Amino acid sequence: MKKATDLNHLNEFKLIERIRSRLNTNSPRVKKGIGDDCAIFSTLPNKIQLISTDALIESIHFDLKTISPKQLGGKAMAANISDIAAMGGTPYLAVISLGLPTSTSINFIDKLYLGLQTICNSYRIKLAGGDTVTSPKQLFINICVLGEASKNRVFCREGAKPGDQIFVTGNPGDSAMGLRILMKKNKNLISTNHKNILIKKHLEPTPRIKESRLLAKSKLKVTSMIDVSDGLTQDLGHLCTKDKLGANLYEDKLPISNALNSACMQKIHTSTKWVLQGGEDYELLFTIKPEDVKKLKSLFLKADTVISHIGEITRHPNKITLIKRNGNRVSLKPETGFNHFKRK
Amino acid sequence: MKKATDLNHLNEFKLIERIRSRLNTNSPRVKKGIGDDCAIFSTLPNKIQLISTDALIESIHFDLKTISPKQLGGKAMAANISDIAAMGGTPYLAVISLGLPTSTSINFIDKLYLGLQTICNSYRIKLAGGDTVTSPKQLFINICVLGEASKNRVFCREGAKPGDQIFVTGNPGDSAMGLRILMKKNKNLISTNHKNILIKKHLEPTPRIKESRLLAKSKLKVTSMIDVSDGLTQDLGHLCTKDKLGANLYEDKLPISNALNSACMQKIHTSTKWVLQGGEDYELLFTIKPEDVKKLKSLFLKADTVISHIGEITRHPNKITLIKRNGNRVSLKPETGFNHFKRK
Repeated sequence: MKKATDLNHLNEFKLIERIRSRLNTNSPRVKKGIGDDCAIFSTLPNKIQLISTDALIESIHFDLKTISPKQLGGKAMAANISDIAAMGGTPYLAVISLGLPTSTSINFIDKLYLGLQTICNSYRIKLAGGDTVTSPKQLFINICVLGEASKNRVFCREGAKPGDQIFVTGNPGDSAMGLRILMKKNKNLISTNHKNILIKKHLEPTPRIKESRLLAKSKLKVTSMIDVSDGLTQDLGHLCTKDKLGANLYEDKLPISNALNSACMQKIHTSTKWVLQGGEDYELLFTIKPEDVKKLKSLFLKADTVISHIGEITRHPNKITLIKRNGNRVSLKPETGFNHFKRK
Repeated sequence: MKKATDLNHLNEFKLIERIRSRLNTNSPRVKKGIGDDCAIFSTLPNKIQLISTDALIESIHFDLKTISPKQLGGKAMAANISDIAAMGGTPYLAVISLGLPTSTSINFIDKLYLGLQTICNSYRIKLAGGDTVTSPKQLFINICVLGEASKNRVFCREGAKPGDQIFVTGNPGDSAMGLRILMKKNKNLISTNHKNILIKKHLEPTPRIKESRLLAKSKLKVTSMIDVSDGLTQDLGHLCTKDKLGANLYEDKLPISNALNSACMQKIHTSTKWVLQGGEDYELLFTIKPEDVKKLKSLFLKADTVISHIGEITRHPNKITLIKRNGNRVSLKPETGFNHFKRK
């Protein structure tokens, strides 16, 4: 019985047919989805195109003991469309490459695709095809997402100037603490409710597409933007690199969630570190001109997501400074974040 | 010394910077290449877009003992742009995900990118970005390529009708025999010259972009097209599936190269099998209306690549028949080709 439900007993074409029958790939824009050498689609006039690709590898980016296949599909897609959000774009099409060990069950693949499809449906993204191959050891998922933006309204990493004000959405640090709890490394007492909030932030992140659209549709002078995937300090460093800028961050403005605070036993020093160094937050970190701060805050009054005004850009090359609650200044190292080659 | 040249000693950002400094990503169409969350590009008006993605995994699709890093980069890109050629499109942009074991040397990555860049330069494709992650065991390369075609001139797998004539470019079977020689499984005596031709076909395939352009620019009634990656018979099966068609193939018309013939010790039966079942040929297999056969042949007189008129489409559902030199008819099984889940 086991044999009939794993990949050894399903060839590539039957698998593609199975996937196709479960996905709704046709749309006015996607003339042809899964099943030919390429997918065929059209672009809208007067738009600029965005493309991003991200690979997630078992035992590096995820552990199948702590994430369900549906969550994995959802998170892989969220991580990719977050890159489109980071530039103020709207994702509309994705292609997926799966590297599957032959022992992978059909049930696993169905649930993985359910996760991918659910998030695609939420954001009106068409799954237009991909490739499915054997991977001898680890499972991997590579997604390539296309998005589009108005020609003169794309947000890049470079563009901030001294005096620009720094904002971040949501609660960075929660995801990394969620991972720590999943790995059973957090020994502190914490309520089930808070635990679940943090774990959900890690396993089911929300890409900030809505928030990015709100900014893109506004007339606010957004001068730079990035999504926080490697930790707030490190990603802030990317906004400063090109023009040799620095930044001041204010500890008392950092958005420490109640759940993170409780997981850190209310130790401010520890929770600050989690917010600054976390990783896989998929929150938006951006800068705006000082004169637009009020307008930004009123724009986000209508949104479900909180934004926090956490600091400002300075002229000090590559110097990110944390101004602590007691007024002391601490220099932060931008590189103390996530290094994809050194995680293990 | 060894340590300073492997990935453990280069973080992701330094690696991206190193790759970026070696690639020429800016062009009028690519406003922003490597280095931001997404690449930004524009599309041409009145064109339809094509997208394809392919993953190559060490020990499944290639063996680092038999392919150089430069050849690997070139072949990975060729396999991907061949999918664009198969639909009559012109590739213009690619993004690449690399999964690298930490022991990978910087020299290896430089040569891999040299291979990728060389083929991209030949076909005017811009490498616009990608993702680089650690892979615990196997190296993998995932490429996503974008191409474009005229709105009413895209060739699909479906579309052939009974009576349509079947053509193939080049010499299918050579690549698979090249692999066999590389794996030292061919015990026949064969000249060094022929050996080198076959090995080169396997390691350095030429995607049929030029030939595809020739067809797309012509007014010939091309009714279906595919690139031969899983073996001629199997891929011909894909042209027949949708409309429940069959095909006749003529053994004496199959393009058996001198090199393949010599590797098969002039045994017709054996070389026919290699041509029909090979794999990784990246030749174009297509059908045209019978009235256009003459025009097609004269069109290809100017081309560097030979085309062979190998058979015709029939009404017999999913029945592919080989008419042998002696007039006998043999039924071919379309599924006797390459199954990505069963290669090992």
